Amino acid sequence: MHIENRIPEIRAIGEEKKIILTGDRPTGKLHLGHYIGSLKNRVALQDQYDTFIIIADFQVLIDHLEDSHQVEANIREIVLDYLSVGIDPTKSTIFIQSALPQLTELTTYLSMLVTVARLRRNPTVKAEAQRVGVDSERDNIVYGFLGYPVSQAADILLFRAHCVPAGEDQRPHIEQTRELAERFNKLFGEVFPVPELLVSETPKLPGLSGEGKMSKSLGNAIYLSDPAAVVRQKVMSMYTDPTRKHAADPGHIEGNVVFTYLDAFDPDIHHVASLKEQYQAGSVGDVKLKKYLFEVLVRLLEPIQSRRTEFEQQPDYIRHVLRQGCIHAREVGEETMKLVRKAVQYDYPNLLISQ
Amino acid sequence: MHIENRIPEIRAIGEEKKIILTGDRPTGKLHLGHYIGSLKNRVALQDQYDTFIIIADFQVLIDHLEDSHQVEANIREIVLDYLSVGIDPTKSTIFIQSALPQLTELTTYLSMLVTVARLRRNPTVKAEAQRVGVDSERDNIVYGFLGYPVSQAADILLFRAHCVPAGEDQRPHIEQTRELAERFNKLFGEVFPVPELLVSETPKLPGLSGEGKMSKSLGNAIYLSDPAAVVRQKVMSMYTDPTRKHAADPGHIEGNVVFTYLDAFDPDIHHVASLKEQYQAGSVGDVKLKKYLFEVLVRLLEPIQSRRTEFEQQPDYIRHVLRQGCIHAREVGEETMKLVRKAVQYDYPNLLISQ
Repeated sequence: MHIENRIPEIRAIGEEKKIILTGDRPTGKLHLGHYIGSLKNRVALQDQYDTFIIIADFQVLIDHLEDSHQVEANIREIVLDYLSVGIDPTKSTIFIQSALPQLTELTTYLSMLVTVARLRRNPTVKAEAQRVGVDSERDNIVYGFLGYPVSQAADILLFRAHCVPAGEDQRPHIEQTRELAERFNKLFGEVFPVPELLVSETPKLPGLSGEGKMSKSLGNAIYLSDPAAVVRQKVMSMYTDPTRKHAADPGHIEGNVVFTYLDAFDPDIHHVASLKEQYQAGSVGDVKLKKYLFEVLVRLLEPIQSRRTEFEQQPDYIRHVLRQGCIHAREVGEETMKLVRKAVQYDYPNLLISQ
Repeated sequence: MHIENRIPEIRAIGEEKKIILTGDRPTGKLHLGHYIGSLKNRVALQDQYDTFIIIADFQVLIDHLEDSHQVEANIREIVLDYLSVGIDPTKSTIFIQSALPQLTELTTYLSMLVTVARLRRNPTVKAEAQRVGVDSERDNIVYGFLGYPVSQAADILLFRAHCVPAGEDQRPHIEQTRELAERFNKLFGEVFPVPELLVSETPKLPGLSGEGKMSKSLGNAIYLSDPAAVVRQKVMSMYTDPTRKHAADPGHIEGNVVFTYLDAFDPDIHHVASLKEQYQAGSVGDVKLKKYLFEVLVRLLEPIQSRRTEFEQQPDYIRHVLRQGCIHAREVGEETMKLVRKAVQYDYPNLLISQ
């Protein structure tokens, strides 16, 4: 691999492509749920769209203040995951939220355009708050937590993004962002495109036990960086069909995690269809099925992990990607903030610009 | 006047003096209430303290979104007022809130350290909200309005200010700021001095009618830039003693606005004492008294207005003061933010700093 050839240039502002904004909270390594739910999609979209990928470290603080010391290591893992799955920093700008003061500046303007009541009604805030044991309808919610949809709107609007690729569950955030964009444009003049949700078709990948979606906090995830032995052990522990006592019993497909994963990850859909028939007829056992899934996952993960190993040996390259990503994101963000300040008439041409 | 000699240098960071933060919302020209309540005090303090004066334009947006287009002109007037009363830009750093993205960045960190409940309990938020017809206990309050004590805390803490000169009515804000500083220091390590209120002894100056304090919105103010004819007319309209029908009747001092102003503005306290005796004895009339107050005020305002006229003819100098002020404030603010990011471990030495 020639690192030199992969160094992303700072790209010109105002490319013709439409812009998307997507990203992750740096809470740990990424897993197969992230891969199928967003990473694969991002790789597919990055040729078509000018892509900005935010690593949302401020969003860790809203409910995990005490974990801030782990965030740097988490960011490194996430960037390794991004590069390993094929996110190309010459097409996708990877940057860190806290490294762009323009984001907090825009958040300040937007926070004047929304009431506490409107934020409380946001169902995603409710659900997120509930997850960490807080009732968003009550006043014990942290101020910055209640406001995280405003911060998220700023993430999107700072890049004047046209689309946000995400699941249907993220629609309330896009609605909130659209409202803020419309309200700003109406009050101060057209600055922001009103962004659309680019709905990802992929259903949530269940965890190993079949309960809940795959997530770090539930401890039911296969990570992109899990060694083959760990993947094997996790696959072998998977939930299949509890009604089936012997390999020769007819099995059920519905709710069978192994088949859900095969549907998600095996490109050979004919073979999966044939396996389903055999499984329902009782002519293939769980162990054989799981071994096959293991092979499918290893085929997927092997090239990803091999690229990961290469990138791990190039810490300078990781730094370079992030630094260039932050520089480019800051440039684009500063262009937007110039428009925002001008629209609000807080650019002060008669006071701050020398003549 | 030799403008060249008055050009403030960007001062070295880390001077030995203690730091104070003070400022104003740019909602209009400053008046005698501002002069006696804070400006005079600032001029006295600027030799002793390293002074930062914030022109808080974001705070206009919390309740006057539609007035943003007037803010630039208001800032110019305020800076003219500052310079005219003797605020010296080589001792006091005058800067604009929205021109320091570090302020919004710090606000973001601080907003993770306070609950919605705590902000609602802030009596100054309650009073301010009431003033603009909103109940801070209800959810129709704008998110950025509820959070303005957090933003104000950031204004103070970004400069690691030791003191905030203000009236006793501002104590709740200082309490809130102290709590945020202590909470940050405890969670992440000592970054912020816990600031003290430097209580201004001056009582609020009443308006011309004697009702309420002097304020722009009540239309009962004498501005520092009012021409003598306007000052005369305003003084002549002043509230004195409604029980007094004729100049020879004995008059009351208590609640008599003219005497309140004489106490505030006439350095000749013996003459004021003698006038009080005469007034109570019925040997001096309202008109004579008001004419005397007019003379006192003109003696105060004349040198201020003469300096104002000079500065008005030097728009480049106003721009220079603001630009240098913003540059210096940004430098000091960036030093603090380096400490903040390092404390939270969001400086990412292994990721963002090249080696």
